Amino acid sequence: MESLHDAREAAAASRPHADIYDEDGAIRAGYVSHIGAAIADRDTVTLRGEVPELHQSEIGDLLEALMPEQRQQLVELLGSDFDFTALTEVDDAVRHEIVENLPNETIAQAVQELDSDDAVYILEDLDEADQEEILAQLPFTERIRLRRSLDYPEESAGRRMQTEFVAVPPFWTVGQTIDYMRDDRNLPERFSQIFVIDPSFKLKGAVDLDKILRSQRSIKVEDVMHETRHAIPATMDQEEAAQEFEQYDLLSAAVVDENDRLVGVLTIDDVVDVIQQEAEEDLLHMGGVGDEELSDTVLTTSRGRVPWLGVNLLTAFLSASVIGLFDATIEQMVALAILMPIVASMGGNAATQTMTVTVRALATRDLDIYNAWRVIRRELLVGAINGITFAILVGTTAAIFFSNPSLGGVIAAAMIINMFAAAAGGILIPLLLDRFGADPAIASAVFVTTVTDVVGFFSFLGLATWWFGLGG
Amino acid sequence: MESLHDAREAAAASRPHADIYDEDGAIRAGYVSHIGAAIADRDTVTLRGEVPELHQSEIGDLLEALMPEQRQQLVELLGSDFDFTALTEVDDAVRHEIVENLPNETIAQAVQELDSDDAVYILEDLDEADQEEILAQLPFTERIRLRRSLDYPEESAGRRMQTEFVAVPPFWTVGQTIDYMRDDRNLPERFSQIFVIDPSFKLKGAVDLDKILRSQRSIKVEDVMHETRHAIPATMDQEEAAQEFEQYDLLSAAVVDENDRLVGVLTIDDVVDVIQQEAEEDLLHMGGVGDEELSDTVLTTSRGRVPWLGVNLLTAFLSASVIGLFDATIEQMVALAILMPIVASMGGNAATQTMTVTVRALATRDLDIYNAWRVIRRELLVGAINGITFAILVGTTAAIFFSNPSLGGVIAAAMIINMFAAAAGGILIPLLLDRFGADPAIASAVFVTTVTDVVGFFSFLGLATWWFGLGG
Repeated sequence: MESLHDAREAAAASRPHADIYDEDGAIRAGYVSHIGAAIADRDTVTLRGEVPELHQSEIGDLLEALMPEQRQQLVELLGSDFDFTALTEVDDAVRHEIVENLPNETIAQAVQELDSDDAVYILEDLDEADQEEILAQLPFTERIRLRRSLDYPEESAGRRMQTEFVAVPPFWTVGQTIDYMRDDRNLPERFSQIFVIDPSFKLKGAVDLDKILRSQRSIKVEDVMHETRHAIPATMDQEEAAQEFEQYDLLSAAVVDENDRLVGVLTIDDVVDVIQQEAEEDLLHMGGVGDEELSDTVLTTSRGRVPWLGVNLLTAFLSASVIGLFDATIEQMVALAILMPIVASMGGNAATQTMTVTVRALATRDLDIYNAWRVIRRELLVGAINGITFAILVGTTAAIFFSNPSLGGVIAAAMIINMFAAAAGGILIPLLLDRFGADPAIASAVFVTTVTDVVGFFSFLGLATWWFGLGG
Repeated sequence: MESLHDAREAAAASRPHADIYDEDGAIRAGYVSHIGAAIADRDTVTLRGEVPELHQSEIGDLLEALMPEQRQQLVELLGSDFDFTALTEVDDAVRHEIVENLPNETIAQAVQELDSDDAVYILEDLDEADQEEILAQLPFTERIRLRRSLDYPEESAGRRMQTEFVAVPPFWTVGQTIDYMRDDRNLPERFSQIFVIDPSFKLKGAVDLDKILRSQRSIKVEDVMHETRHAIPATMDQEEAAQEFEQYDLLSAAVVDENDRLVGVLTIDDVVDVIQQEAEEDLLHMGGVGDEELSDTVLTTSRGRVPWLGVNLLTAFLSASVIGLFDATIEQMVALAILMPIVASMGGNAATQTMTVTVRALATRDLDIYNAWRVIRRELLVGAINGITFAILVGTTAAIFFSNPSLGGVIAAAMIINMFAAAAGGILIPLLLDRFGADPAIASAVFVTTVTDVVGFFSFLGLATWWFGLGG
């Protein structure tokens, strides 16, 4: 059964343009085993016939679905038919492993075929020595271009830009420009804008292609160009550049050096990756995880998570020591030990809600000086209202369950105090971290739950000690 | 001092193309008060001179920075100079408030100037009656187009698409196509692709503009077009459409109806918004917040958060009842009450780490059948290693602090059990929720921390009861 099913799937997959994905978006098992079998048989005819037909991202998914040793063999068997852009679509760890095992000559050859942004993406992970050895094997202009990109800081626009672009002088006509594009064979693979520059490469403006197509041949380019208000300095952080793209709905933008000279172009597809990456970082940081990849080893993952757990341990010790202050109280009234996690947990939950909204609003720049006070006031009010709501609920339940109305009153009061503290901590801590230039996504969670644990235990056990005259 | 500073800032802002933002990305206070003063003076000359110069997203930010009554007045004072696309750039609540207060005639007039995707964005939030009244005032073709978009399900590609596009028959030449674009005044504002259709509007293919520009005038369009492998059904969910864009680096894609006829075009700028929105939803859901907006009122916000707090309360009661099982034990050994939150908190933290990675990997489709077992095994191993690491740390500390080596042993054993349970829950719960079609981002956090609380308290207090022969 299994193999018949597989065979049928493989047949479907090998038809040109058949969809290699199942409904869940995973590559079909039959297709992976079909390619796996071809690799085992060293069947280069099948591999060279089918794999290059796939889109680079499909090849990337295929590589990830194969076993590590199969990946290596597939790249070798495909030879010059392997599309190296597929390496920009896989996990960092998978790319490392493949690139590490390839001879530098092969990489040098491949890099020449790539757009400069893809080439930089592959080169930037290599160590300095390998980088130099590969660059040394490239033609002069290629080498200069790539080295310039690599000289810009990590995660800058200069690293992500493509150094291939179309630029024309302002006095050319639309007709001249179109003729130039029809003749020149050295154009970038895809482009949506033409840049206008002066003889020193200083950026004067840009024209969208649809504008060119709509204009009469005799019109001068400078008359249809728009000023490029959104030229991006090559040293700008990629996240900031992505925000420019989002705000102004850009498809591509000129990248300029410190003298306003055009050095490259940043395109929306790279920016989409940056947006995804930044959203992912925020989510992971709030979950107490660093820049972890799914393909990392057990030891790498474990080591990466220890610092966050360590910080949490310190705050847990702090909470424990607060409880320790009241050990005599608990000894006399064990119900307090049963109820105290409720106060802490509800506070932690309310604080996480407020903090999540705050961190996200800071990341998208929706929270600024115009609404900060309004949002702070709103959060405090929400904290008070929800605090009172749940105080009544928990107080009544505790009073009935332990047949002790006073205990109900004490836990209700503690709940109100802690959920108000949760709201205050949830909004003020990320705001303060942001004000002092720290990333609020990273540190907020630890600080905020420390506040709600400490305030929760202290208010509940403290109020109980005072009200019932316990302890000492 | 203040006013001099403000005046200077206002002067800077009123210069054409001056940057209206400060370094933090917030609109300059001086600019907001300058516009606010012009609104108060009903100074239409200043307003109509300056505001329309801004980009739609800048007007959006300006609207958000103003007081609610100022927003209304600004829209009225600008009259036909107000760019309604700015409304697609503001918070839902701000847009509602502005649109609600405008006469339907004004909206009907404005909607005709907009691209259809922006028009739908504004119309879809109105109630049925207002929608009908506005649609009734539109010219026939406009009305048909918008109604068709509105008939598609919410959050579908049909709602986000633009119904303006350029389509030509396959037998046209490149030259004919260029001439057509030079003459036709009814082209969409921006486009990067030309579609090729047969007489019944069936989609045959597409040509990127750069391809048109690079081809000789005599070549037929069908010879330079590519088959559109990535045509998007109008009923497809916007998130799925966004994933197509990401995977295949699309700038725009044809949207087709159930008969494969071209009905619109989806562009990357809309998709970028969808990507942002989806990433935001995941983050908010994991933080226990629904689809909340920064501009929501106190009561809306408070009500929206109550369900999540309610679920947390139930799980907190569950944990409390587990502790309640061991009240006699705690009475005899109060140190257990002091230490028990440490076990629960470390488990909760470790589980959140695993869960965050899992939820994100599911959202980006990085986690599938090919690596699920490997990732599960990795997480369990990481849980075991970190469990042992922190068990040693906490066990030693507790043993020394309470001068009780057995107590150290008990808490160490409980830590190992709970951190292993945390790893198992953190990966298996989101995977199972996803398998059963639930959104793992929404429900995972509650289930996972319930597991670590219950297992943490039960294992620690249970082991202590057994080892020290307490309780009963």
